Amino acid sequence: MIAGIIGATGYAGAELVRLLAGHPEITKIVPASVSFQGERIEEVYPNFQGAVSAALLKPEEVVAEADVVFAALPTGVSEAFAKACMEQGKNFIDLSADFRFDDDEATFSAWYGKPYIYPELRQRSVYGLPELKRAQIRELADRGPLIIGNPGCYPTGASLGIYPAISLGIAASGATIIVDSASGVTGGGREPSRSFHYPECADSFAPYKVGAHRHTPEISRNLAFMSRCASAAYPAGLSALSVIFTPHLAPMNRGILSTIYIPLAEACRLEQSAPPRPPAKAVTERAEEIHKRYAAFYEHEPFVRVLPQGCIASTSRVRQSNFCDISVHLDQTGTMLIIATAIDNMVKGAAGQAIQNMNIVYGFDERAGLTAIPASF
Amino acid sequence: MIAGIIGATGYAGAELVRLLAGHPEITKIVPASVSFQGERIEEVYPNFQGAVSAALLKPEEVVAEADVVFAALPTGVSEAFAKACMEQGKNFIDLSADFRFDDDEATFSAWYGKPYIYPELRQRSVYGLPELKRAQIRELADRGPLIIGNPGCYPTGASLGIYPAISLGIAASGATIIVDSASGVTGGGREPSRSFHYPECADSFAPYKVGAHRHTPEISRNLAFMSRCASAAYPAGLSALSVIFTPHLAPMNRGILSTIYIPLAEACRLEQSAPPRPPAKAVTERAEEIHKRYAAFYEHEPFVRVLPQGCIASTSRVRQSNFCDISVHLDQTGTMLIIATAIDNMVKGAAGQAIQNMNIVYGFDERAGLTAIPASF
Amino acid sequence: MIAGIIGATGYAGAELVRLLAGHPEITKIVPASVSFQGERIEEVYPNFQGAVSAALLKPEEVVAEADVVFAALPTGVSEAFAKACMEQGKNFIDLSADFRFDDDEATFSAWYGKPYIYPELRQRSVYGLPELKRAQIRELADRGPLIIGNPGCYPTGASLGIYPAISLGIAASGATIIVDSASGVTGGGREPSRSFHYPECADSFAPYKVGAHRHTPEISRNLAFMSRCASAAYPAGLSALSVIFTPHLAPMNRGILSTIYIPLAEACRLEQSAPPRPPAKAVTERAEEIHKRYAAFYEHEPFVRVLPQGCIASTSRVRQSNFCDISVHLDQTGTMLIIATAIDNMVKGAAGQAIQNMNIVYGFDERAGLTAIPASF
Amino acid sequence: MIAGIIGATGYAGAELVRLLAGHPEITKIVPASVSFQGERIEEVYPNFQGAVSAALLKPEEVVAEADVVFAALPTGVSEAFAKACMEQGKNFIDLSADFRFDDDEATFSAWYGKPYIYPELRQRSVYGLPELKRAQIRELADRGPLIIGNPGCYPTGASLGIYPAISLGIAASGATIIVDSASGVTGGGREPSRSFHYPECADSFAPYKVGAHRHTPEISRNLAFMSRCASAAYPAGLSALSVIFTPHLAPMNRGILSTIYIPLAEACRLEQSAPPRPPAKAVTERAEEIHKRYAAFYEHEPFVRVLPQGCIASTSRVRQSNFCDISVHLDQTGTMLIIATAIDNMVKGAAGQAIQNMNIVYGFDERAGLTAIPASF
Repeated sequence: MIAGIIGATGYAGAELVRLLAGHPEITKIVPASVSFQGERIEEVYPNFQGAVSAALLKPEEVVAEADVVFAALPTGVSEAFAKACMEQGKNFIDLSADFRFDDDEATFSAWYGKPYIYPELRQRSVYGLPELKRAQIRELADRGPLIIGNPGCYPTGASLGIYPAISLGIAASGATIIVDSASGVTGGGREPSRSFHYPECADSFAPYKVGAHRHTPEISRNLAFMSRCASAAYPAGLSALSVIFTPHLAPMNRGILSTIYIPLAEACRLEQSAPPRPPAKAVTERAEEIHKRYAAFYEHEPFVRVLPQGCIASTSRVRQSNFCDISVHLDQTGTMLIIATAIDNMVKGAAGQAIQNMNIVYGFDERAGLTAIPASF
Repeated sequence: MIAGIIGATGYAGAELVRLLAGHPEITKIVPASVSFQGERIEEVYPNFQGAVSAALLKPEEVVAEADVVFAALPTGVSEAFAKACMEQGKNFIDLSADFRFDDDEATFSAWYGKPYIYPELRQRSVYGLPELKRAQIRELADRGPLIIGNPGCYPTGASLGIYPAISLGIAASGATIIVDSASGVTGGGREPSRSFHYPECADSFAPYKVGAHRHTPEISRNLAFMSRCASAAYPAGLSALSVIFTPHLAPMNRGILSTIYIPLAEACRLEQSAPPRPPAKAVTERAEEIHKRYAAFYEHEPFVRVLPQGCIASTSRVRQSNFCDISVHLDQTGTMLIIATAIDNMVKGAAGQAIQNMNIVYGFDERAGLTAIPASF
Repeated sequence: MIAGIIGATGYAGAELVRLLAGHPEITKIVPASVSFQGERIEEVYPNFQGAVSAALLKPEEVVAEADVVFAALPTGVSEAFAKACMEQGKNFIDLSADFRFDDDEATFSAWYGKPYIYPELRQRSVYGLPELKRAQIRELADRGPLIIGNPGCYPTGASLGIYPAISLGIAASGATIIVDSASGVTGGGREPSRSFHYPECADSFAPYKVGAHRHTPEISRNLAFMSRCASAAYPAGLSALSVIFTPHLAPMNRGILSTIYIPLAEACRLEQSAPPRPPAKAVTERAEEIHKRYAAFYEHEPFVRVLPQGCIASTSRVRQSNFCDISVHLDQTGTMLIIATAIDNMVKGAAGQAIQNMNIVYGFDERAGLTAIPASF
Repeated sequence: MIAGIIGATGYAGAELVRLLAGHPEITKIVPASVSFQGERIEEVYPNFQGAVSAALLKPEEVVAEADVVFAALPTGVSEAFAKACMEQGKNFIDLSADFRFDDDEATFSAWYGKPYIYPELRQRSVYGLPELKRAQIRELADRGPLIIGNPGCYPTGASLGIYPAISLGIAASGATIIVDSASGVTGGGREPSRSFHYPECADSFAPYKVGAHRHTPEISRNLAFMSRCASAAYPAGLSALSVIFTPHLAPMNRGILSTIYIPLAEACRLEQSAPPRPPAKAVTERAEEIHKRYAAFYEHEPFVRVLPQGCIASTSRVRQSNFCDISVHLDQTGTMLIIATAIDNMVKGAAGQAIQNMNIVYGFDERAGLTAIPASF
């Protein structure tokens, strides 16, 4: 099978090239790049010398030649390629935000400042977070060529951390969930800028776009979807959950760590008295119970690892892998569930998840091409 | 004036040496070290070659020779030195937790696993967060030799970020405040260990001691103190505030960035409707109002900088300085105040604040010895 | 085939586990660890959770069960395991220095302070730098169980950079070659120590063991071997070459970059006049000629990449791969060849090269298990 | 005294602002910036908030108002400002290469591709490496307004490491000296580019501009100057020395470490026999002798620290200080002197040295404004 990659010279595109070049079902890679058209991918990325070799084509050429097309472009320019793919009967996996909001064009355009160009394409698109949407992806794939709206990096780690809490009735109805995340600098892309200039971000830690990051509505939409599926867990009803999301820039290349604060439902709460004391036995036991439920929830997921109690999620343990690590904690009073999730922002947060989606669409082993074991350092 | 430093070869001790060596009122430094006794400070820290030179003495010798004694020791061993100082009429500034909890021995011993050895010393001690306790420090100093319980690094950045919100009635009564912090690795001290071994923490980000860090009760106690002083701001009364605190380790040497989530009091709240939209004008204006109140609150503080709107707190901007930078934000719904604070964990979070306390005790210019301008990189 | 790994919880051992777990010919991994015996490898290295799972056995158990045995131990303790393997007819691949010096016990013991315990084992051992010794490895393997003395990390990058210069008669007879190398911190191993404590090596660069590093005699011995094979290139004879080697510690996890200064043989020299001027056309052309000869020399090597002119070796491009990248340069006067080589110290410099050796010994595809494409960041 | 800074918003300019703001003789700072004219320095560099405050003027305004003018501009644009300063009787300290080559316009233009615009200005200019040129600087200053050509960052560390070897007759006549240096990323300036984009240089080490860096002729010229002054040390004459210089980029913000290989003069050489053995007593003793001579040579220099034997130069020990640290070593054969020098590229390598030059020109204490003690981490 021939895989096409539009936007192959950006960071997510280069990860797609690397991972697809090692995918057992992919026989050829055809990359496109507007900036470097006419050059070869191994000239732009000399790390590929002797390992991957391909000329950088025009996007149209890629669409024409490939069986499946990936696009790793800025938000707002994927629709034309999606349309061409649909017309030519090819599956299209988009890493931008263009297809993440389904038919909710109002939310998309409020945050991204653009309308949908071809709104009708959303009849063929699905949000590609496999752990939430695997069944829908498969169904849609059965009906013809489809478009995957591959999730944003932050929403992936955040949503996977929150999903069991809602599905299992652990989160309080109507709660405000706080997602506090730190990302490596590759999240900012390959284009040089002051913010990502080495001396400006080395040995430094700071939040950015506080209260205003575009991944907020994507997380929020995912909470709404989870809530709709959670009626069994909330017999008395589940009032809308809201999310506050703060991203930070950490001085490292890869990884997103999200620390997620989820107020516990009445049935799960413990009210340990003030002044604060180290976690009482009841708190530790409650944490273990919830941990077990999280572990059972994700038992059959190939890429979600609920870590053993005592082991805390860290970006270093998922580096270059498609895993999402989750650790489960309670605050000392037993009223707040604290979930830490770690992903590689460029793999599970971008290129790896896109390939996982491709595997689902084509009925390949979901792990195909994504079997890299994370290194210890 | 002669300054003694017990524990001078740990990281906080070495910072005391560096800063006191440049202090205009300090004529001599006498350091002590149990591990390196008999060596010279510039042998243990060759960065001091040609700049600071002193033999490492026994702690008793330091107490005998110095006019003011600093101790940068593990928690649990300062009391004997404090007692000796009181008996010899010398001021004692302690960087451990031994004197941070005043007469609340129960909380101290619950978290640190040790009783007070000389509980009566707390009659001469005060918690040394100058922005909260300047008046009390001065009063106590007027009455004879005193003991300063220098604050923990995380509680410093957290408390300074929360203080105006409570004092000005901005925080909701009874709220749970979430403090999500990231620290550089010097916070773990100089003793080698797996956790702080370079390959284990480089290019990695992770939380630690979730729901169980010892700085939680210190922040909580500070909230209670602030609340007691805030009656004017809460005519209808202020129910107890609680805190959830999660520290993270970031791959950098210095700095603590705290992102603090403070639910807004009724009077300050805006309820922007779901689904989330980018911050409306009303939200931006409300943020500006609160920013102005924060700026006015700290107007006369020499080391607190409330940054202009649009400028976000970052650890890189306070490196090697005693500043605490604060930026003021709202979430997109206008219901949560989000405060970011940045300090250098080894300066405002340890040695610098200790010197600030000394300056207050002796009536020196509070900035003396702490005028370093943070470098741009 | 079952692979045994003694010393599996050190950094090189953990890399062996990771790489062998993905090797197509290895059906099972049996790791041993003295420090963590009784635990499981995925408990010691949680990055292996869900990907590799194995109990940590005693070394004897590993020797008994495995078909091929790797040892990643401190120098001085491998001989007993090598002996056991020879007696049980199993191949033994040793990552320490115990078998790197063949029958030159004098040099070994002068630098490592230990005699050989079983000198006779050297009749079954070979130095495992495949690009120099592939034929010898194969021959020895044909004759029964063998011992591989896997090269040191620095000598690997240094020797591969120098080899063509000697083989092709480019280096001046009798020259002193300077090897100036920088290594990532994983080279110091997993045991915590002050030198590799994060705050001591972050944001810092320094040489160590100047004029006294144990890899010097290994590089020197390799030069002697290369010289013996180079008689055709030096019809007038080749006087002994000597080496000066300086290692540096760089603030990064992986990688070794060696900058190698090789005085040019008379026939290759250009004498561009002082004062120094930017490289003249003649210098650039000479560099291109030598580049072509280097590229041709390594044309069929699976893991050596002679980079195109204009592209300079960098550790980032070989991260997690078994490649050795080489770039070819001349100084501005045209008298000194400057070779830069980059390897991942833990892969081509340790575990990867050990597996490459295993592949040669067993007649597997030399690339088996080592096909990872280096990531772009 | 009023200090003007043209190019105040580049990295070297910002360091000038920071250091001059703390200089006891400077009463006011007037900065200029073409890129940010009309803004304030504390807006461009928020680290200056509350510490330094100044409007960014036009360069002409700065020349008119200041008593002494610093320029931190790209090479090729300083001459006009130098001319204006000379006409207005003001001293001009230039951090570019425009005045580093005295009347050797041929060398300057060969490497920088530009002719001198006002060659006659060199009658009023001097190369500002104080340890080599202090007397000449003072003499020239006595005769009216002068121009300082502040040295390049690499040539500073390289020249200070080599100077005693030539002056004391330790270096072999006619030798080729190799300077292998690693720099932090601030050396690349503030302008964003691919090379200095965080993900491209983090966790990576590589050489650049091999055999072709513009600092080569500057080092070479300094060697010639040292040689002319060293006739007493070489009674038999000193043939011209040449230099090969290779810079590397290290993943850190500040610092340059140079490892310098200097072939020993006949009288100093020891010929320890091959194969290489650990350094013999004779080698260690010879190293100590040379160390003593180095230490004595720099005994009265305020900013050069010849480290005690056993202590190796490291960039971390000079961070934010004007020190140049030097450690003295021999290779194991006793034929090559290996000198390691460490400077902060932005202080002794740029802004600090410029201020040191100002102090000399005006007869201030040479340490004024440069007393910062390097921090331990």
